[in-house]
Amino acid sequence: MKRAVCLVSGGLDSATALACAVRDGFETYALSFDYGQRHRVELAAAERVARQMGAAAHQTIAIDLRAFGGSALTAEIAVPKGRQKEEMGEGIPVTYVPARNTVFLSIALAWAEVLEAEDLFLGVNAVDYSGYPDCRPDYIAAFERMANLATRAGVEGTSRFKIHTPLIDLTKAEIIRLGLKLGVDYGLTHSCYDPVDGLPCGACDSCQLRLAGFAGAGTKDPLRYAAGGV
Amino acid sequence: MKRAVCLVSGGLDSATALACAVRDGFETYALSFDYGQRHRVELAAAERVARQMGAAAHQTIAIDLRAFGGSALTAEIAVPKGRQKEEMGEGIPVTYVPARNTVFLSIALAWAEVLEAEDLFLGVNAVDYSGYPDCRPDYIAAFERMANLATRAGVEGTSRFKIHTPLIDLTKAEIIRLGLKLGVDYGLTHSCYDPVDGLPCGACDSCQLRLAGFAGAGTKDPLRYAAGGV
Repeated sequence: MKRAVCLVSGGLDSATALACAVRDGFETYALSFDYGQRHRVELAAAERVARQMGAAAHQTIAIDLRAFGGSALTAEIAVPKGRQKEEMGEGIPVTYVPARNTVFLSIALAWAEVLEAEDLFLGVNAVDYSGYPDCRPDYIAAFERMANLATRAGVEGTSRFKIHTPLIDLTKAEIIRLGLKLGVDYGLTHSCYDPVDGLPCGACDSCQLRLAGFAGAGTKDPLRYAAGGV
Repeated sequence: MKRAVCLVSGGLDSATALACAVRDGFETYALSFDYGQRHRVELAAAERVARQMGAAAHQTIAIDLRAFGGSALTAEIAVPKGRQKEEMGEGIPVTYVPARNTVFLSIALAWAEVLEAEDLFLGVNAVDYSGYPDCRPDYIAAFERMANLATRAGVEGTSRFKIHTPLIDLTKAEIIRLGLKLGVDYGLTHSCYDPVDGLPCGACDSCQLRLAGFAGAGTKDPLRYAAGGV
């Protein structure tokens, strides 16, 4: 059985990407990061998701991106609340974490190389929320090219790394429909950037996009939200 | 003054690359990694080197690559000793750490983005010891391309990341001559993969290449080696 390393944040998108890896016949190795994120509660969600989807292993790697700051997710910068969708699309959001996907994919590549896996799965999406530079298809292609030069496989010509981004062209509603079809339990996931008493706030960009996605998919989000959030 | 993020391992090459950044007029930000390396003593050397070269800041980021294993530097695999130079050149050495430079450069990129630095300095070398896939010029160029798509700067078109590899075409002897000219104190550096009682062993590939480099440069290595090592 071919192995795939799957980045699993605990959120809705990465849970769906993991389900796609299972659908595609891979033995999955789930990888999460404890990088100093304000919404650290997502790591427990990642563990639940990896277990539910039958991952062969799940590792959480600690790396302190707080040492650098520069994002509302890793420094004392306020997470925006109650923004309209048009505002979210304006430029690069303050919740952008510098080079985050590059750091995560690099570490995934290290694990893949040890596992002799050639496939990485990443739940990035360029449709609903394209403000993050490291979610664009051009970037993914450039990383893949680099990865194939970076590693043992690149020198020996024994394998070719492939970065799978099964959600990249889907809307949030389409992602949710796909995940439900593949058996994802979205009640196990966590999307909120700034939880209130452990519950999703319902007002940050991530909660709003999630809720709009469920509405668009014509189904109800199984999560309970903080009072007054929605 | 333009800023540059410089990867400083504590070794001879990265100390020289840091000196090149100073020579080129950059304000330097030294970055080291505590990644579970067997020769963790090099981190104290990195601190000394950064201080001697007048770095504006020095950060050591912890990231546990031992979680994956796969290298003699991060797992219980023996470090080869007393090999001839021809043997060292055979294939990829067991001291290769999967995707290490990619992981390190990615984290350097994150810090550079926060610092608004466009320049990264890396002491890789493709001449004396070219067994590592992630020390090749093609790889460096691919990383640079990826970095410019990965980041805020890539979207906004405000800057262009440049990865400087001032040592890539130099022999070890040439690197040492250059460093001495630029004021590097090699007595502060550490190269050994497998120190004996805190002293360099003199027999691993890294020690042997270092000693041959000093001999080639016609000068003496200021380090004291473990008894019987050399």
